[in-house]
Amino acid sequence: MKIVKDFKWKKGLRAGELVKELGSVGFQGVELGKATNAVIKMKKHGAKIYLTFTSNMMTSGLRGFFAQIIKLQIPHIVVTTVGGIEEDIMKSMGEDFIVGDFNADDVELHEKGCNRIGNLYITNESYCKFEDKMAPLLSKLYEKKKIWAVSEMLAEIGKNLDDENSVLYQAAKNNVPIFCPAITDGAFGFHLYMFQQKHPDFIVDVVKDFKNIVNTSSFDDKKGLIALGGGVSKHHAILAGLLTGGFEYAVYMTTSRHTSGSMSGATTKEAKSWGKVKDDSDIVTVIGDVTINFPLMMISVLEQLDKEELL
Amino acid sequence: MKIVKDFKWKKGLRAGELVKELGSVGFQGVELGKATNAVIKMKKHGAKIYLTFTSNMMTSGLRGFFAQIIKLQIPHIVVTTVGGIEEDIMKSMGEDFIVGDFNADDVELHEKGCNRIGNLYITNESYCKFEDKMAPLLSKLYEKKKIWAVSEMLAEIGKNLDDENSVLYQAAKNNVPIFCPAITDGAFGFHLYMFQQKHPDFIVDVVKDFKNIVNTSSFDDKKGLIALGGGVSKHHAILAGLLTGGFEYAVYMTTSRHTSGSMSGATTKEAKSWGKVKDDSDIVTVIGDVTINFPLMMISVLEQLDKEELL
Amino acid sequence: MKIVKDFKWKKGLRAGELVKELGSVGFQGVELGKATNAVIKMKKHGAKIYLTFTSNMMTSGLRGFFAQIIKLQIPHIVVTTVGGIEEDIMKSMGEDFIVGDFNADDVELHEKGCNRIGNLYITNESYCKFEDKMAPLLSKLYEKKKIWAVSEMLAEIGKNLDDENSVLYQAAKNNVPIFCPAITDGAFGFHLYMFQQKHPDFIVDVVKDFKNIVNTSSFDDKKGLIALGGGVSKHHAILAGLLTGGFEYAVYMTTSRHTSGSMSGATTKEAKSWGKVKDDSDIVTVIGDVTINFPLMMISVLEQLDKEELL
Amino acid sequence: MKIVKDFKWKKGLRAGELVKELGSVGFQGVELGKATNAVIKMKKHGAKIYLTFTSNMMTSGLRGFFAQIIKLQIPHIVVTTVGGIEEDIMKSMGEDFIVGDFNADDVELHEKGCNRIGNLYITNESYCKFEDKMAPLLSKLYEKKKIWAVSEMLAEIGKNLDDENSVLYQAAKNNVPIFCPAITDGAFGFHLYMFQQKHPDFIVDVVKDFKNIVNTSSFDDKKGLIALGGGVSKHHAILAGLLTGGFEYAVYMTTSRHTSGSMSGATTKEAKSWGKVKDDSDIVTVIGDVTINFPLMMISVLEQLDKEELL
Repeated sequence: MKIVKDFKWKKGLRAGELVKELGSVGFQGVELGKATNAVIKMKKHGAKIYLTFTSNMMTSGLRGFFAQIIKLQIPHIVVTTVGGIEEDIMKSMGEDFIVGDFNADDVELHEKGCNRIGNLYITNESYCKFEDKMAPLLSKLYEKKKIWAVSEMLAEIGKNLDDENSVLYQAAKNNVPIFCPAITDGAFGFHLYMFQQKHPDFIVDVVKDFKNIVNTSSFDDKKGLIALGGGVSKHHAILAGLLTGGFEYAVYMTTSRHTSGSMSGATTKEAKSWGKVKDDSDIVTVIGDVTINFPLMMISVLEQLDKEELL
Repeated sequence: MKIVKDFKWKKGLRAGELVKELGSVGFQGVELGKATNAVIKMKKHGAKIYLTFTSNMMTSGLRGFFAQIIKLQIPHIVVTTVGGIEEDIMKSMGEDFIVGDFNADDVELHEKGCNRIGNLYITNESYCKFEDKMAPLLSKLYEKKKIWAVSEMLAEIGKNLDDENSVLYQAAKNNVPIFCPAITDGAFGFHLYMFQQKHPDFIVDVVKDFKNIVNTSSFDDKKGLIALGGGVSKHHAILAGLLTGGFEYAVYMTTSRHTSGSMSGATTKEAKSWGKVKDDSDIVTVIGDVTINFPLMMISVLEQLDKEELL
Repeated sequence: MKIVKDFKWKKGLRAGELVKELGSVGFQGVELGKATNAVIKMKKHGAKIYLTFTSNMMTSGLRGFFAQIIKLQIPHIVVTTVGGIEEDIMKSMGEDFIVGDFNADDVELHEKGCNRIGNLYITNESYCKFEDKMAPLLSKLYEKKKIWAVSEMLAEIGKNLDDENSVLYQAAKNNVPIFCPAITDGAFGFHLYMFQQKHPDFIVDVVKDFKNIVNTSSFDDKKGLIALGGGVSKHHAILAGLLTGGFEYAVYMTTSRHTSGSMSGATTKEAKSWGKVKDDSDIVTVIGDVTINFPLMMISVLEQLDKEELL
Repeated sequence: MKIVKDFKWKKGLRAGELVKELGSVGFQGVELGKATNAVIKMKKHGAKIYLTFTSNMMTSGLRGFFAQIIKLQIPHIVVTTVGGIEEDIMKSMGEDFIVGDFNADDVELHEKGCNRIGNLYITNESYCKFEDKMAPLLSKLYEKKKIWAVSEMLAEIGKNLDDENSVLYQAAKNNVPIFCPAITDGAFGFHLYMFQQKHPDFIVDVVKDFKNIVNTSSFDDKKGLIALGGGVSKHHAILAGLLTGGFEYAVYMTTSRHTSGSMSGATTKEAKSWGKVKDDSDIVTVIGDVTINFPLMMISVLEQLDKEELL
């Protein structure tokens, strides 16, 4: 039986230690503590780890952290949406995103060429730069072959970037496949379409990529899932895991609620009814903003793995 | 200046009238009233209307209502996710979904072969029936041609169903294209993959479908958006509208919040910064469960259009 | 076993019928249907009904509806917070509240003397009028006696109002006590304080009112709770019910979530651990905006009771 | 112009440093960073600081942290609800609360005498111990005088406790008044009522305590507000501040949303329309669980103040 412990600040408290203490404080602090333990188990038990996140997290400064943990070989498979891929490429070209305001005047922003994502802004110029990059990149790909599975395409693009903080770069370098089931749903899609207009035999083969994600794991693998936010990236990883027997470990971090029956709000508990996670799996749902909760949890994981020389 | 009016029940009050009264009650009731007006304007001003919804809404009984409003020619373009398409097909085969409980024992449900989506259940049998249907359907498609854009494929499937309450059936019959940018993200994707294993030249061309959705509207069209829930379906319609000049009208219904910078929670206000909706557009965000708010709003719209003989 | 039914609009659909149909649609529609049934049972089984709501619902046009159902003898006990009492008095003096905008410029509103509550505004003038009313009212009360329990005070004020749409007026007229455990937490509290400065023997006895609320029910009564929103009004009714054996029926309507351990988000399920509701009680939690969900549910209840000549 | 910075973990990262970095990451991380700065300003500019929290935070291990920051003289005024006061007393008597599960079986818990608050449990025994304490405590108070303002009563109780981690103890010791506008809304209220049955001249004077809270600040004071969660504790501090000219600084931490017009979800922006915060005030609303966000923010504040020898 675990007892609630009164939290006390001690000077110089490390972030990793704080998370441990929060595990005895209550409410989402407790869930955060459990999530940390679940991820540590994934690593110790040699699980294949799927990391999923939505585009807005790549807009945020979590992007560099994702790149870092890919380099540290925490996740083995990444699933995301295309907006984030675009932004990773923009940032790898030196583009900066702006810290702004949730309550900004949006008409004014529009006039200034600033596109708002919560309290962050991306300028039109960044999209223009992205466009300049895409045309030659697609030509290069096309020269190699005509039909591309999405994850192959993203690996190839990653090889063409040169930025330690880039998710695509680190994933390519460390042989971590990136899946993106709705690859056309963004500016990227527009450039694919423009390119296909000129090269009608250029094909993005999404069905083949389904095979690829299913083949990343076998029934014999232990599997772990870290799903940040919801939507198609979360669902796609779950589906891939389900087709090879379900997950032994799952951590969901979300702000969505389960009460509307949405995928984004679906809990790890609900996942049991589907066999998405095993009946006796180690599962945690942490409610809250990923920009705060994910670094907290993952720092605690990394410090612990480092301490045990498992990093 | 609009004044808050005390709401009073009158015997036999119609649903359409209730919504009008809620427009003067306060909070989300007011937003619901505004949303009704925005959709009526879309119709009166001849806007091209994009309707987007997530899969869980097809799980629910909104599916028949979506089919009905497609038949009534309210939306001109539909964007959704593949889970809902699967479920529309299951239901058109006579499968029933079960009204259950959010707090059900999920391990028990799993043992019984019930898959939970919030407080609704789909049995494994329904998925098996779906599988039986898919194999011959894909063969039939393959005989016609080898390369399919998603919306063409869904139209063809719709022609093969025979159910007045089916979204695919009504959409096919009424020439309403259905877009589904992440077509592999479900059991449907699995069946596509199995089929491609045997027929390697079978291709689903998502890039071509991007062209198709962009071409549904021109810069000259007035455009309206009704986005139910978030995720890729919402974003894809917004993107298509943006590429042809942005929306004049937009109604978002969601339970997600804007505070995490997610697409699902992004408001119509944020959309202005992107030019996704025009600076002087008619926009409303209604927070709440779509199973309640969408029928309420749409009944009010339909009653009004019917009264003015515009239906 | 209940089956999901495809919803179809029929011309002239009544609000009460809609709710019944939503009960087979899914997600919160289902919970709304269950809530309707729970309230009908409360009435049929002669339960003592506690109705609680937060101040913002009195700001809204629900105020007239609360007055109406008090007149119709639906609730037997009301618990609320003092802001709503102030606003009920203002409205009974002819003051109007304004339907505004969630995104209004708040500095501008402040300059105009408009106080914002979500998308509704109350002007400073309404507060001035309230002040003019309070001084003579308190003198009148003081002449009668020096020590007042809160509910006695509110009943006396209700007798001094003359507005069919007033909650205090109807409650006084129909012998429905109104409890308000934090009576000083508003402009009302300020006026009590000013009055006490001049009349130091003027006492508001909150402890006595605790006795009063406990005595509204006995262990023998069946008890039902309709809690709209959370906070102290919800908790106070629950506490009173708990002290006389717990509720047989409970409907909570809230936008708060249970994941932070707050009273506002606490579910009817959690209430079982406390004995706040009985183990085999009829309980429902409906997530969503009360301005929409409460009228919908209650109209359905009233139509059903009327049909069975129980109104 | 602030730029989004890619976050990177460095071994041994301190919690205080992490918060600084999150300020450039995005979304609620940014707001947390702003909140830290606002609280540091409050201290540096000598503001009177009001700290408000709901009862569930006292159930959690934040209780010891509240006691610690009261000892460190961060807040000058505390406003809370009575459940938390009861639990502070129980814990000071050595009672332990249990870390449990949001999805526990509530009927089973009830049978075991465990009362659930989110994922924490309080046993019936703790309530019995509390009862044993209250009777002699109230007698002791009654011997001193018959009429008590709430804050005076709580200070007196604090003096009778002996626990460094107790909020009431530290508040009494450090002359920080604790206001609790709904003092009867809990087991405490029940014991007051039992005592008054035997001693009818025992009076809790809430009106006098309104005077007390208004008098804690003057128009000349700079004022800062840290409101954790919503409800009556948040509103009461705001009201007190408003009556002496409004706050210069305000940090709200909540999981509630502004879209239903509730006090709990009301933002710092809305507060401007009321003059609750000054037009040019320094205000931040952080959305998320207080058990995580409050320690993070406050650690960052304390480390900074300590570094500048202001602690």
